[in-house]
Amino acid sequence: MEDIIFGKNSVLEALISGEREINKILISKNIHNDVKLNKIKELAQANGIVFQFVAKEKFQPYAEYNHQGIIARISPVKYYDLDEFLEAAHENASLVILDGVEDSHNLGAIIRTCVCAGVDAVIIPSRRNVQVNSIVEKTSAGAVNHIKIIKVNSLVNAVQKLKNNNWWIIAADASANDNYFDVNYNDMNFAVIMGAEHAGVSRSLLKLSDFVVKIPMMNDFNSLNVSTALSAIIFETVRQKIRKTAKVK
Amino acid sequence: MEDIIFGKNSVLEALISGEREINKILISKNIHNDVKLNKIKELAQANGIVFQFVAKEKFQPYAEYNHQGIIARISPVKYYDLDEFLEAAHENASLVILDGVEDSHNLGAIIRTCVCAGVDAVIIPSRRNVQVNSIVEKTSAGAVNHIKIIKVNSLVNAVQKLKNNNWWIIAADASANDNYFDVNYNDMNFAVIMGAEHAGVSRSLLKLSDFVVKIPMMNDFNSLNVSTALSAIIFETVRQKIRKTAKVK
Repeated sequence: MEDIIFGKNSVLEALISGEREINKILISKNIHNDVKLNKIKELAQANGIVFQFVAKEKFQPYAEYNHQGIIARISPVKYYDLDEFLEAAHENASLVILDGVEDSHNLGAIIRTCVCAGVDAVIIPSRRNVQVNSIVEKTSAGAVNHIKIIKVNSLVNAVQKLKNNNWWIIAADASANDNYFDVNYNDMNFAVIMGAEHAGVSRSLLKLSDFVVKIPMMNDFNSLNVSTALSAIIFETVRQKIRKTAKVK
Repeated sequence: MEDIIFGKNSVLEALISGEREINKILISKNIHNDVKLNKIKELAQANGIVFQFVAKEKFQPYAEYNHQGIIARISPVKYYDLDEFLEAAHENASLVILDGVEDSHNLGAIIRTCVCAGVDAVIIPSRRNVQVNSIVEKTSAGAVNHIKIIKVNSLVNAVQKLKNNNWWIIAADASANDNYFDVNYNDMNFAVIMGAEHAGVSRSLLKLSDFVVKIPMMNDFNSLNVSTALSAIIFETVRQKIRKTAKVK
């Protein structure tokens, strides 16, 4: 099994992070040479990775992707195991749990946001959720290689395990009473559950949650995209962390 | 000139808001009948808008769009004029200024976030920025009909005008010293400038800004998507507003 990644940024990110085995890089003969491409060639050479210049017709099978004339064949993304993750010690750690996110662009944007905000891992279910495919990898700007992605068979079991390990569970739901900034996210390990674009977080997970929070809507138009919603919540947890550190100093 | 909007949600939103003149609705004969479709037919009928059931082959010209078997031909989005906007009285109002956002999905997500957060208007330049096209409309889930979109020839002139009218200007830039949550957004009219995905906010606009703020990165991976970045900033301004109101009560 091989994955395809495409675009200069994604290929460069994969080379830099070194997390995934790169089998081959294909570069279009018509590609514009620039700093990024030179860096890609330099890193590939240094790491003994084959790269090949090919006619642009060779890219026809990848027409659906915005490949910019470069693709790499790489080993599939490595999913992590929740039990292993929980065996390590965690302090003030954070997780994001996705319950039924179906859109690849959303998953990519979410993973990117999580890496920027220092989230420790993202948990996705093995069914009824988009998996980490090429489009996710590209939208994430390579962020998939900078964070643990944990795949589980049952989100309910996963949340139960987290609770048994003293993690706090916060679900985002439009009908909640409390605002997301009413929760104090400091001094605990917590997981934020984001729901599917239409259905929201499943009832069984809401029941297990310690807090259910909403993003206040300032308009009669309640339809925030899941990745922008997560960004508002997760950077509030960052704000609180930084504010607390500033006070202690 | 006509625009095309597509997908059940966008068409329904356009019918409900009534902001745009709908010339005709085309519905695929193979479409699945549901609550939304019934509502669309009901509203179209009530407003004397023609809808037509056609063979799915008629949708071939729109293959690039995720149309779900329904499109509407409508009058183009109505852009507002900055001078007119500034003639009205504003108190604790907010604006978002986009400096070179090129991706339709990003613009759609940004407009959607702005409507949810109660932003008064979005300013885009007439060049070097994506305009409000069908993909923007669709990604915004119809939000383009719930907010003023102001198009200007020169962002520098626009910012200067805002300053002359006592608006505060806040630019988001990765190299800023201050965090976005260090600014007090209450008791003023303010505009947040977001830059292009790669180049950031132009130097000429940075110079005119009263504050330049960054989103703190918790990882060595500084690459937040512009729509998720805006979400973090704009909902911090919402948080401050709600917190202030709560204190006064």
